[in-house]
Amino acid sequence: MANAKNILFIMFDQLRWDYLSCYGHPHLQTPNIDRIASMGVRFTNARIQSPLCGPSRMSTYTGRYVHSHGAAWNGYPLRVGEMTMGDHLRKLGMDAVLVGKTHMQADAEGMQRLGLEPDSIIGARQAECGFDAFERDDGLAFESNAGPNSPFVETHSAAKYNTYLKAKGYDGENPWHDYANSGLDDDGNVLSGWFLKYSDQPANIAEEDSETPYMTRRGIEFIEQAGDTPWLCHLSLIKPHWPYIVPAPYHDMYGPEHMLAPVRSDAEKQTDHPVLAGLLQWMVSRTFARDDVREKVLQAYMGLIKQIDDQMGVLFKFLEDTGRMEDTMIVLNSDHGDYMGDHWLGEKMFFHDTSVKVPLIIYDPSSKADATRGTTSDALVEMIDLAPTFYEVAGGDASDVDHILEGQSLVPILHGTGNPDREVSFCEYDFGHTPQAEAMKLAPNDARMFMVATRDWKLIHFEGGFRPILFDLANDPNELVDLGKSPDHAEHIEAMYAHLHAWALRNSQRVTVPTKRILLRRKNMEIGKVGILIGVNGPEDLPPGAVDQYIGRKAVDKRAPT
Amino acid sequence: MANAKNILFIMFDQLRWDYLSCYGHPHLQTPNIDRIASMGVRFTNARIQSPLCGPSRMSTYTGRYVHSHGAAWNGYPLRVGEMTMGDHLRKLGMDAVLVGKTHMQADAEGMQRLGLEPDSIIGARQAECGFDAFERDDGLAFESNAGPNSPFVETHSAAKYNTYLKAKGYDGENPWHDYANSGLDDDGNVLSGWFLKYSDQPANIAEEDSETPYMTRRGIEFIEQAGDTPWLCHLSLIKPHWPYIVPAPYHDMYGPEHMLAPVRSDAEKQTDHPVLAGLLQWMVSRTFARDDVREKVLQAYMGLIKQIDDQMGVLFKFLEDTGRMEDTMIVLNSDHGDYMGDHWLGEKMFFHDTSVKVPLIIYDPSSKADATRGTTSDALVEMIDLAPTFYEVAGGDASDVDHILEGQSLVPILHGTGNPDREVSFCEYDFGHTPQAEAMKLAPNDARMFMVATRDWKLIHFEGGFRPILFDLANDPNELVDLGKSPDHAEHIEAMYAHLHAWALRNSQRVTVPTKRILLRRKNMEIGKVGILIGVNGPEDLPPGAVDQYIGRKAVDKRAPT
Repeated sequence: MANAKNILFIMFDQLRWDYLSCYGHPHLQTPNIDRIASMGVRFTNARIQSPLCGPSRMSTYTGRYVHSHGAAWNGYPLRVGEMTMGDHLRKLGMDAVLVGKTHMQADAEGMQRLGLEPDSIIGARQAECGFDAFERDDGLAFESNAGPNSPFVETHSAAKYNTYLKAKGYDGENPWHDYANSGLDDDGNVLSGWFLKYSDQPANIAEEDSETPYMTRRGIEFIEQAGDTPWLCHLSLIKPHWPYIVPAPYHDMYGPEHMLAPVRSDAEKQTDHPVLAGLLQWMVSRTFARDDVREKVLQAYMGLIKQIDDQMGVLFKFLEDTGRMEDTMIVLNSDHGDYMGDHWLGEKMFFHDTSVKVPLIIYDPSSKADATRGTTSDALVEMIDLAPTFYEVAGGDASDVDHILEGQSLVPILHGTGNPDREVSFCEYDFGHTPQAEAMKLAPNDARMFMVATRDWKLIHFEGGFRPILFDLANDPNELVDLGKSPDHAEHIEAMYAHLHAWALRNSQRVTVPTKRILLRRKNMEIGKVGILIGVNGPEDLPPGAVDQYIGRKAVDKRAPT
Repeated sequence: MANAKNILFIMFDQLRWDYLSCYGHPHLQTPNIDRIASMGVRFTNARIQSPLCGPSRMSTYTGRYVHSHGAAWNGYPLRVGEMTMGDHLRKLGMDAVLVGKTHMQADAEGMQRLGLEPDSIIGARQAECGFDAFERDDGLAFESNAGPNSPFVETHSAAKYNTYLKAKGYDGENPWHDYANSGLDDDGNVLSGWFLKYSDQPANIAEEDSETPYMTRRGIEFIEQAGDTPWLCHLSLIKPHWPYIVPAPYHDMYGPEHMLAPVRSDAEKQTDHPVLAGLLQWMVSRTFARDDVREKVLQAYMGLIKQIDDQMGVLFKFLEDTGRMEDTMIVLNSDHGDYMGDHWLGEKMFFHDTSVKVPLIIYDPSSKADATRGTTSDALVEMIDLAPTFYEVAGGDASDVDHILEGQSLVPILHGTGNPDREVSFCEYDFGHTPQAEAMKLAPNDARMFMVATRDWKLIHFEGGFRPILFDLANDPNELVDLGKSPDHAEHIEAMYAHLHAWALRNSQRVTVPTKRILLRRKNMEIGKVGILIGVNGPEDLPPGAVDQYIGRKAVDKRAPT
C-alpha cells in the first residue's frame, strides 16, 4: 500500500514519557502500547511546544509555534482563520474528526466580527479547532463555583459524558465528579478526587463506565460509522490527567515498590532563580514534594495508565477485526508530562524533560515502512511535526503549506529514507495568567519563558530581565545542575541564545503566500513583462519585444489650452 | 472641543520628507501644507515600517509590524481576520472610508475558506483593508501584457478614473497611460511616462483631469455626502509616485537650480556588501545615478508636489467653508520616500532616511492641542502609531486594543501632556520576491533585512548570513559611512542587535486576549475559586468556604460488584 488511508491520532493527557514499559518503565507493563511500538517507530526525543494542555495542543493542531499562533495559555482563543491540521487535510479529501479533548477556545469575538455562526459548518470547524466534533469533551466537569473570571469556565465540560452517567443511574448534578472522579466512604460520603489524599481510593463507578473506556468506545463508534472517505480521527483521552483516581481493579495494582524514584536533588531546593524559586513555592509543588502524597497519586496514575493500555488493547483488536489495522496509521502521543515531585515540582509548567519530553509512537501500515518496524528514532522531534507528517500521508505536497506549517514531516524517518533531524527544538511557556506572575508583579509580556534545546544543551530564557538557566544534557541528563550562572559556560549560553534569536526572527506570519509562488514569480519580473516600467530611461533600454505597447501609440491631442 | 469628531487621513505616495518647504526645502514652496503644519505638530523623526508601498501601508493600517502581519511585499494578501484601523474605529462608532489607494491585496483563499463573500458588507471590508471603499484606486492602470505571474496584476487598477477620462473624451483602452501619464510629440505619438526621458514633458491632459485634482475632488465629494456619523476618511493620493510626469503648468516650474544636491559619495559605490552592491546594479539605480535623468525626473516630481499642495489648498478651503476645519483632525503623511539618486540608488527599497523617513503633520482642532500648534516633535515615531492615535481620538480605551496594536498614541504629544518617545524604531524589508534575490540565489526567507534605529545609531541586519551595516546618525546624518565592519564599533553593533533580538521575541500574536483581562483573571485564581483544585492534598488545605462543594456530598453507591 502506498500510504495509509486513515490516521488514528491518539493523544493521552499528562502522560509522562517514562511510564510505559516500551519506554523502559520496569514495573508498569503496557503490552498493547508496546505492541504498536514493535510495529512502528518509537521516538525518544519528542518534545512538546508548551508545557500546558492548551498551548501545547494548539501548536500540535496548527503545526506552528506558540509564538506564531498566540494561543499561549489555557482558554486563550485560537485566532479565527488560524489553520489547523483539519483545515489542511480536508483540502486533500480527508475528513478530520474529533473524539475527546482539544482544550481549544473558540475566538468568539473574531467569529462574530467575520459573521461566522457557530452552528454553521464553517463556524463549527472554526470553533472546534478545524475538526468535525463527533464528541468534544475536555474531560473536566467544573464545579458550579467557577466564576466569570475563572480561566476554565469557558472550556468545554464533559457534558455528554455526564448525560451518559445520569442515564446509567448515577445521580446528582455532576456524576463526573461524584462518581467517575471520587471515592466513597462507608457512610456514603463522596471522597472528592480533587483531593490527592483520596487518590488511592477506588473511584465510585463501574470500570466500564469510567472515562477511558467510555471515550475509547466513542472512538470505536466513530470508526464503525465512518464511510469510505479517508479520515483522521483524533481520539483524545483525558487520562491519566488529574483528578488522580481510578476505579477498581486498577486502584490498588501498584505500590511504592513499582514507582520510579523521584528525580531531584537537595541543591535544587536552594535555587536562587526567582522564577524557579517561585514555582517551588506553589502549593502543588510543596504537596508533590511529600512522598506520602506522591505515592498515593502515583498509585492512581499508574492504574490509570494500565487502564489506558487495556483499553488500547480493546481498540487495537477492533481495528484488526475490521481490517483497519491494514490501512490506518496509528499515532500514540501525549500533550505533556507530569512532574510528580521530580525536581520538587508538581504539574507540568516548566521545561525539564520530565514535562516537555513525551511518548510518540507511530505505526505506518504502508509497506514502505516495513524497514523501520520496531525501531526507535532519537531525532529531535517537535509536536509541530505531526501536522506536516499527516499532510504528507494524506497525499499533500509540502510546498503548498510550508509557509504555514513550521514543522517537518516525519515520513522520511518512518520509511527509513532519511533523517530530517533538526539541530534545535523550542518550547515556550507564558505564565502571565498565573498567580505567580501576580505575586512577582510581572507584566504579562514579561512573564514568558523560552526553552532552546540541542542534543547536548538546554537553555531556558526568561523575559523580564531574569538570568537564563542552562542544563548540560550530555553530562547531566537528569537536569539537576543549573549552569546558568557558570562563567565557564558563557560560550555555550551565547551559542544557545544565537539559536533563540535566529528563531525569533523567523518568518512565521507570511501565511497567505506559498514560498513556491514567490520563487515562480520572481523569475518572471523582467523589465517590460510585468505591466509596469521602473527606472527605464527610454525605449532603447528595453529588451526587444517589450517595447511595443509603450510607444508608437497614437493619441488625439486633448491637451488643455494654455 | 474634547476630541476631533472626524479624521481626514491624507497619504501621499513616495513623497520624500525633505521636498516640502515646511521641512526645509529652499525652493519648493508648499504654503498650504505648511499652513497645516503651523496649525498642528510637525514630526521630524517619523519612520515607516517597510520601504515599499504595500507592506508600509499594511503596517500603518493594522498598527502592527510587518513581522507581525506578514504582508511583506506588494501583492502579499493581508491574512483574513487581521484587524485594521477601520475595524477598530468602527467598534467606536466611527466610519472608516477609503478614497484612493491602499495597495491592499485581499486574502481571497482565506475569505473563501471562511465563506466570506467579497460583495457582502463584512467581505467587502475584509477585501478593502477594513475600509468602506468610496473609491478604491491604487493609481496604476497596468499594461495589458502583465502576465499571470506579475505580482502587480492583482492590485486594483485605476478603473473608475479611466472611466472618468473616457467620459471626458480621452480615447483608447488606457487613457490613464496615454493621457494622464504620457506626453505627446508633434506627430501625435504618445511619449509614455513610463520612460524617464519624457518626465520633463507636459502630461497630455487638462490639469483638472489629472489624478491629483480628480482624487482630491472625490475626497471632497465623500465629505459632502457624509452624514452626522463621525468618520475617518483615508484620502490616499498616488502622486508624486511614478510615472513621473505632470501636466502644464507644473511640468516646467522647476529646474536643476531648484533641486537638492544628491546625497552620495564615491566611496558608497565601492561597497563590498553583497546586498547593497546588488541594489546598486539595478537598472533603476544605474539610471538615477545619471544627473540628466535625475534632473528630468525631479522636474516632474517637484511639479507633482506643487500640484498636490495647490490641491490641498482647494481641499482645506472646502473644509473651512463647511466648518469641517473645526471638527476634523488632519493628518498628512507619506508611505515612504524616493531615493532620486541619493546614495546612487533609485526607488525606495532600502533603509537610508531618504526612503524610510517621511513627512508627518497632524492638525488637531481640539482646544487641548492649542499649546502645541506650530511646534515640531523629534520623537522617534513609527507609522504604527497612527492607528492607536486615531483610536484614542475616536474615544477608545487603549487597554482594549494594546494586545493587537503595536504602536503608541501620539495624542500626548499633540496635547503637550507627555512625550511617549520610544528608544528604538524598526523597519523591515523582505526582498525575497525580487529579481535580486533570484540573482543572488537567496531563499525567500533569507532575503529579509531589518533596520534598527535609535536616535544616534542605525543598524541594518540581513538574514542569509551577511554582515550588518551600521550608520552613526549623530556624526554622519547623511548615512554615507558604513561602519558595519568597524572593530571600533563592535559594542554599538552588539547593543543594536540586543534591541533587535528583544523586539523579535515580542508577544505580537496574542491578539484574542486583552492584557487587562489577563491581569483581572490572574487576581482571581485562588485555590477553590476557579472550579478546579490542583495540588490540594485534603480539605484541611483549602481556605474556609472553598471546601463545601467538594466534600460532604452524599452519593448512592453505584460501585460495580467486584
